[in-house]
Amino acid sequence: MKELEQRILKDGVGIGSDILKVDSFLNHQLDTGLIARMGEEFARLFAGCGANKILTVEASGIAIAFAAARAMGDIPVVFAKKALPNTMEDPYVAKVHSFTKNTDKTIVVSKSYLSGGDRVLIIDDFLAYGSAGLGLVDIVRQAGAEVAGFGAAIEKSFQGGAEKLRALGITVHSLAVIASIEDGNIKF
Amino acid sequence: MKELEQRILKDGVGIGSDILKVDSFLNHQLDTGLIARMGEEFARLFAGCGANKILTVEASGIAIAFAAARAMGDIPVVFAKKALPNTMEDPYVAKVHSFTKNTDKTIVVSKSYLSGGDRVLIIDDFLAYGSAGLGLVDIVRQAGAEVAGFGAAIEKSFQGGAEKLRALGITVHSLAVIASIEDGNIKF
Repeated sequence: MKELEQRILKDGVGIGSDILKVDSFLNHQLDTGLIARMGEEFARLFAGCGANKILTVEASGIAIAFAAARAMGDIPVVFAKKALPNTMEDPYVAKVHSFTKNTDKTIVVSKSYLSGGDRVLIIDDFLAYGSAGLGLVDIVRQAGAEVAGFGAAIEKSFQGGAEKLRALGITVHSLAVIASIEDGNIKF
Repeated sequence: MKELEQRILKDGVGIGSDILKVDSFLNHQLDTGLIARMGEEFARLFAGCGANKILTVEASGIAIAFAAARAMGDIPVVFAKKALPNTMEDPYVAKVHSFTKNTDKTIVVSKSYLSGGDRVLIIDDFLAYGSAGLGLVDIVRQAGAEVAGFGAAIEKSFQGGAEKLRALGITVHSLAVIASIEDGNIKF
């Protein structure tokens, strides 16, 4: 998506060889018009995928998933939580490894909101090593539901996450694919 | 907002005398059509408030703030974070007390995204004791910015948060005002 690529070049901050900071329009401050157009692009890319629900993970995935859901006829969004609320009993749980922080975390989804009949489009802000993505796929499969596809706003293709998802037979579309970050210099 | 009140009565779960669970449409699964209409209602209530930016807090405020921003001409949304990202230096910090969990947490906003010229509409999912709201007001004032108003999706008026904000001269609008929860029974 040209508009997103141009925005990354204008306002994204490459750090070292693996980090891209997009705090000014996607991860802390939100450009809501851009994100709405990203939602429309996901709707176009995944037209006919048959999804009846979108799954994402808090917090940065929420606005993008919301915009995609609006563009897909207001199908429901479920966002996985990073901490177990004390009012949630017996959720689906998956482990997610953070390569940048070298920590393991769990994400949870209530069993009330995913079940066997669902076809689930997974949407997230970043697709890097694929750990969060694989965790979300794991949760969809625990529910006995089908993965309708995986949409990432920004893919860092040199970190291999998309390949891991495609190896599971999942259709992956990313709105911007970053081939490398070298001394903060971003290349598509 | 009649539609939200009716939805709370239909799908909200009152627990004891102080908790309202709205996981099925607002806090874990999102009814994106309803939330879009809530955003339009905030735009109507705060028309003329002069806000050039919306501030909320992750995670449950994000979709509502996004919808309000869209309805207000795509002004930017900034969401406060509950943990300090390792790429954020020297943020605005405020303390937030959770009455239900009896814990103190901090919320942070990068100094890059709020400054002296801003008029900031604060939006959140719940207004209960007002602790998160006061923390967000504190951050706006640390930035030397003006609070243009405070919008809550659901106010629990018996917990007093709205009074605390109004005592600071802040205009507060809530889309649904809950007067009491008794044995799980919700009254407006």
